[in-house]
Amino acid sequence: MRRFVLFASHRNNLSRRYHSQNINQSQNCPLSSRFLSSSSSSSMASSKSSPAVTIDTINPKVKKCEYAVRGEIVILAQNLQQELQAKPGSHPFDEIIYCNIGNPQSLGQQPITFFREVLALCDHPSILDRSETQALFSADSIQRAWEILDHIPGGAAGAYSHSQGIKGLRDTIAAGIEARDGFPANPNDIFLTDGASPAVHMMMTLLIRSEKDGILCPIPQYPLYSASIALRGGTLVPYYLNEEMGWGLEISELKKQLEDAKAKGITVRALVVINPGNPTGQVLAEENQQDIVKFCKQEGLVLLADEVYQENVYVPEKKFNSFKKVSRSMGYSEEDISLVSFQSVSKGYYGECGKRGGYMEVTGFTPDIREQIYKMASVNLCSNISGQILASLVMSPPKVGDESYESYCAERDEILLSLARRAKTLEDALNTLEGITCNKAEGAMYLFPRIRLPENAIKAAEAAKCAPDSFYCRCLLNATGIVVVPGSGFGQVPGTWHFRCTILPQEDKIPAIVSLLTDFHRSFMDEYHG
Amino acid sequence: MRRFVLFASHRNNLSRRYHSQNINQSQNCPLSSRFLSSSSSSSMASSKSSPAVTIDTINPKVKKCEYAVRGEIVILAQNLQQELQAKPGSHPFDEIIYCNIGNPQSLGQQPITFFREVLALCDHPSILDRSETQALFSADSIQRAWEILDHIPGGAAGAYSHSQGIKGLRDTIAAGIEARDGFPANPNDIFLTDGASPAVHMMMTLLIRSEKDGILCPIPQYPLYSASIALRGGTLVPYYLNEEMGWGLEISELKKQLEDAKAKGITVRALVVINPGNPTGQVLAEENQQDIVKFCKQEGLVLLADEVYQENVYVPEKKFNSFKKVSRSMGYSEEDISLVSFQSVSKGYYGECGKRGGYMEVTGFTPDIREQIYKMASVNLCSNISGQILASLVMSPPKVGDESYESYCAERDEILLSLARRAKTLEDALNTLEGITCNKAEGAMYLFPRIRLPENAIKAAEAAKCAPDSFYCRCLLNATGIVVVPGSGFGQVPGTWHFRCTILPQEDKIPAIVSLLTDFHRSFMDEYHG
Repeated sequence: MRRFVLFASHRNNLSRRYHSQNINQSQNCPLSSRFLSSSSSSSMASSKSSPAVTIDTINPKVKKCEYAVRGEIVILAQNLQQELQAKPGSHPFDEIIYCNIGNPQSLGQQPITFFREVLALCDHPSILDRSETQALFSADSIQRAWEILDHIPGGAAGAYSHSQGIKGLRDTIAAGIEARDGFPANPNDIFLTDGASPAVHMMMTLLIRSEKDGILCPIPQYPLYSASIALRGGTLVPYYLNEEMGWGLEISELKKQLEDAKAKGITVRALVVINPGNPTGQVLAEENQQDIVKFCKQEGLVLLADEVYQENVYVPEKKFNSFKKVSRSMGYSEEDISLVSFQSVSKGYYGECGKRGGYMEVTGFTPDIREQIYKMASVNLCSNISGQILASLVMSPPKVGDESYESYCAERDEILLSLARRAKTLEDALNTLEGITCNKAEGAMYLFPRIRLPENAIKAAEAAKCAPDSFYCRCLLNATGIVVVPGSGFGQVPGTWHFRCTILPQEDKIPAIVSLLTDFHRSFMDEYHG
Repeated sequence: MRRFVLFASHRNNLSRRYHSQNINQSQNCPLSSRFLSSSSSSSMASSKSSPAVTIDTINPKVKKCEYAVRGEIVILAQNLQQELQAKPGSHPFDEIIYCNIGNPQSLGQQPITFFREVLALCDHPSILDRSETQALFSADSIQRAWEILDHIPGGAAGAYSHSQGIKGLRDTIAAGIEARDGFPANPNDIFLTDGASPAVHMMMTLLIRSEKDGILCPIPQYPLYSASIALRGGTLVPYYLNEEMGWGLEISELKKQLEDAKAKGITVRALVVINPGNPTGQVLAEENQQDIVKFCKQEGLVLLADEVYQENVYVPEKKFNSFKKVSRSMGYSEEDISLVSFQSVSKGYYGECGKRGGYMEVTGFTPDIREQIYKMASVNLCSNISGQILASLVMSPPKVGDESYESYCAERDEILLSLARRAKTLEDALNTLEGITCNKAEGAMYLFPRIRLPENAIKAAEAAKCAPDSFYCRCLLNATGIVVVPGSGFGQVPGTWHFRCTILPQEDKIPAIVSLLTDFHRSFMDEYHG
């Protein structure tokens, strides 16, 4: 009977590599942090003067902030990868399979051709009227590049734009939102940002005055929210999604948590809803969304709607509805609800994470508040123009009759249908395993299975000074090379354990992953059933 | 004798356009803010429920933050521009000349061809091996694109990279720094960022715990610093540059201000130095830099070196030295000084503002602090990949023997020599004007002339509830269409008045600008000498 090896082969390695590896220190598993600090103190032993900054004199909010998606487990994986490169055959697997992060193109997803054609042409417009260009690029990409450059004053895609983004691109995005929702959208409500994250930070900066200000966030949540709140010194007010009800969002839970927070002297400023859910994958029903909108209006909360997975819905019985559409359908106007919708070019079928494009649509704020948001955007001048262009493209892809239309649809559908199949295969496989239950990934890019661990495994984790889910994930990594993120990085009902696994490995790899997962899980359970 | 018109024609316009114009409200000139608030209150008069957020319930740090480079004067300029478009001939000028911001390509500067070729090819690598591509692109740009894609795992330029940026690009940047300085640079010290601004914010977030933490900043300063400190609730500790000594940075002044701050209970954490200076254009002498380095070591301050204008030096007697080079030349190692150098693709001869590329080189911090910086970078995943690629290109441009080398040098030199001529012409012209004295722009992209205003002008400004320099800038805008930023947006010795004017309009426009400035200034002085 073999014990799963935790750390043994990586300890020295971690120490040795530390200086060349600036890595994230997680609070999860004290073993590695202990280790890192010893390395750090030795390196500064010969310091002549006391350093200007020490861990005890930095902003404590930074220390408090955590981001498990690129945390400790990923660092271990990177070390394993380097070991494999240096010494092939040194582990029971040949490659690391990164299922920790929603980063489709890193796992082989190809970009949408039309989008990349337009970006390339906007980067180098001097080839636009060359004859060779017509052989290399589709006619509609050339046409679109001309249109986009026409929107940019002087055609200067290398200039800072308006702080909210290029007006003509915001017009296109607003038209895309209108087409999606059937309700008007105002280009002056759009703030283009480098991915969705800076937009979330901007809203948190606006709303959070002190630790007495609270933000209602789902648990489990995407840790951008907890990190952003921690960095600004606010209080995360959790509301638990109901796992038994397919990660249902219950208004009674929102009310309860709001009242609890109020009783503690917390002023709750906003409600974060992630739809489709991350890490939980549920797609909200319209009636549920209506109740959420009502709740926000009644309680005077800003609704922060993370809608970056709006294109990622995999089940025919569910449909994405934007909160803006839902609230306008209810007859709610700007004066009834303050609503911010976040969108990104990193997700959907495009998965253009590296382009850092995104926007927020800001509605229901008075002009004086909008001005303050504008001012914050101005301090950073503008988001990157390629990301801005891409955000306009995803909200206005090729249309019937365009040269690229058919190939565009084929590329898009192949990606989305394949993601749906991958989600289903992984979900089914997980649900066959002893002690694992996994809700359907109706949308987004993740599965978030619950794992019920044998008492001995929990004791082993304790002995390793590790949370049980973290222990499980490390054992999985060490045995198979598969990287997933422990549920504790997202939050979970105390005493329950989960992990987040993306559905993004290419389809031809899924059977091998299922088999690795299955074999590992069986061995692990055999091991710890004792 | 005509009075300069201030506001008269724009007031109604400002109100009317407000809803479609999310604009920045400056504290400088209360007339416009009064105006904006009245507009805002009327628009919400019919509100059914009280809004979730009011100006009194947002984070007061946001309210406190100011950013004049895109402030009130720019808003007025945008309104004038719209009026000119709607009604040509409605003003005594035909176009707005934006001299408010260091945004070269918005004023017609062309991008460096080689850089854009590489970016386009990395955006759309599937054309790399097509024969038509060889007709459209230089051989070395094709070669460089292959090399860059080889650095990216799976060649996936659409994937999130390592949180610090793509390792291979950081290698290139480190090699560029080594070549520049003659001292080693470590790729793991490089953090790639979306322009320099997010890097500055990251360091301020790390260092500022409360209003008791101070950051020494030059006055005049680039208002990113004051804005970033205000948003994080820290204290800006000013040190005044000596205008009479060509905006000299005096150690005695640093010491005096540091002691004053300490006496007030402020813990000074860092010293910001902008070299070449913004808005002041001076280039520091090496001995001066050595004294600054010593001062930081003695006082245990982090040295935050804004070196984004490192390529912009226009006078043969001055040379840019990085603070890293200076400190290593003095024999100071990582253990002696905590030093962060900021670089950007927005400035130099490249001026690629819209690409949002940049990096910081972080040296002299212990591993545990570096980890915390890494964690902050991870929360935002990574900076945009095009910006990362461009940052590597500006630190590693074509070399002798490369196909593009000659055309690259010609493009670069034409831009830099022209900037030097423009700086000199504008400086000379300003110095001929009564009451204006202007230090040389040895580097960077700005002139920061001092204006001595007649008593009557100061009274007129008072009557208009406006700072005198703001009054002057508005009158200039209304008379000529030239947009400059009042000195009060950067800080200045109390009772002195300045404005910042970029040297960026294309060279063929400079004579007209000189003539407009001269005529305006004479009329203005005639008017108020009265």
